[in-house]
Amino acid sequence: MEIKVLKNVMIKNSAIGNDNRERLLKHGVFAINITSSPGAGKTTLLENSLAELNKVHPCAVIEGDLYTSRDAIRLKDKCVPLVQINTEGGCHLDARMVSSALDNLDLEKIKLLIIENVGNLVCPSSFDLGENLRVLVYSITEGADKPMKYANMFKSAHVVLINKVDLAIACNVDIDSLEAEVKEVNQSCKVFRIAANRPESLIEWNEWLLDYVKKFRKGRD
Amino acid sequence: MEIKVLKNVMIKNSAIGNDNRERLLKHGVFAINITSSPGAGKTTLLENSLAELNKVHPCAVIEGDLYTSRDAIRLKDKCVPLVQINTEGGCHLDARMVSSALDNLDLEKIKLLIIENVGNLVCPSSFDLGENLRVLVYSITEGADKPMKYANMFKSAHVVLINKVDLAIACNVDIDSLEAEVKEVNQSCKVFRIAANRPESLIEWNEWLLDYVKKFRKGRD
Repeated sequence: MEIKVLKNVMIKNSAIGNDNRERLLKHGVFAINITSSPGAGKTTLLENSLAELNKVHPCAVIEGDLYTSRDAIRLKDKCVPLVQINTEGGCHLDARMVSSALDNLDLEKIKLLIIENVGNLVCPSSFDLGENLRVLVYSITEGADKPMKYANMFKSAHVVLINKVDLAIACNVDIDSLEAEVKEVNQSCKVFRIAANRPESLIEWNEWLLDYVKKFRKGRD
Repeated sequence: MEIKVLKNVMIKNSAIGNDNRERLLKHGVFAINITSSPGAGKTTLLENSLAELNKVHPCAVIEGDLYTSRDAIRLKDKCVPLVQINTEGGCHLDARMVSSALDNLDLEKIKLLIIENVGNLVCPSSFDLGENLRVLVYSITEGADKPMKYANMFKSAHVVLINKVDLAIACNVDIDSLEAEVKEVNQSCKVFRIAANRPESLIEWNEWLLDYVKKFRKGRD
């Protein structure tokens, strides 16, 4: 009974996720879903890259959070449309929530939609939101042993941003070992090393993303 | 339909949680449920406190993990009985899993049962495992703004161990503000500041816990 209901929930979510993707595609919007543990640096990443991204492809942000609007407030001076979703204790965003958020955005005016998921290294992996690219921000403060332990999240990511690399020595984490394990779990994912609070460390990732979005848009035209 | 099933799951879990607590009580076993985000330091805490605790109250450990036995392996030279639960991708331990684990422990030989939950700052808050004390390990690397954002987890904790305090300056986190917010969310919880990799920082917490367990056992006798 429980399993059957769970299966139904997942099937429904996938269908709505696909609808979201088609709807976004019609408007030429590329969507990324950013996942991570709590405090791994998703919002700091946006604080320090949104202006650069927005110069090339007009952006909008959907902020997922259990209760507060704190992350949205941190981004409010970035001059991009922003919709807050509060899950009221829920452990992940789902496709239906994102669909409602899309109703509140003028999709004709944006080219890159960035969805910041709830901080959780387990549940969000199972929920397709309609994104084109899933980006996992992983903080090295969580240790080098997590890719195998939280394998679903690492497997489902197209890109892994290894964050807070400046704390590697203090946290006694060997970044090469960590990256090797990421690759062991998910051979095809792209990996960047960043310190999200240092904008200069984000240049390579920003350029890769902008180029990826450009190719997507070319493929569409 | 989905809500009804979820409600049933929770009611069933609470009932089994209560059964676990009664079963443990009969054998004079005090149980703690340790929760946290991934990589916040639960296993390091056990690595550096288990020997001290075990000297006073014979311990056993139930290790919760999605897939691997890595944490259990880290603790295997601590000479305490150890049961591994793999949730196979599940985002939390539940009371039924713990009940099965108890079948594999000689409860007459232990006095303090330590359950290390899956690393997740959302879902485990809703699942009573039958513990007497819930302990949240919070790493300051996750920032000072999380108690409000992940309120259920902080509200449900009897004790919050603020960990990795040696990284506070590097992470630009004001520990006093963090602690004030913990207290705002949960006035009655007990807070300790620790660096789990430094055993000397654990003395106060260990003593508090040992004393708490002693009082519990006195109340019972």
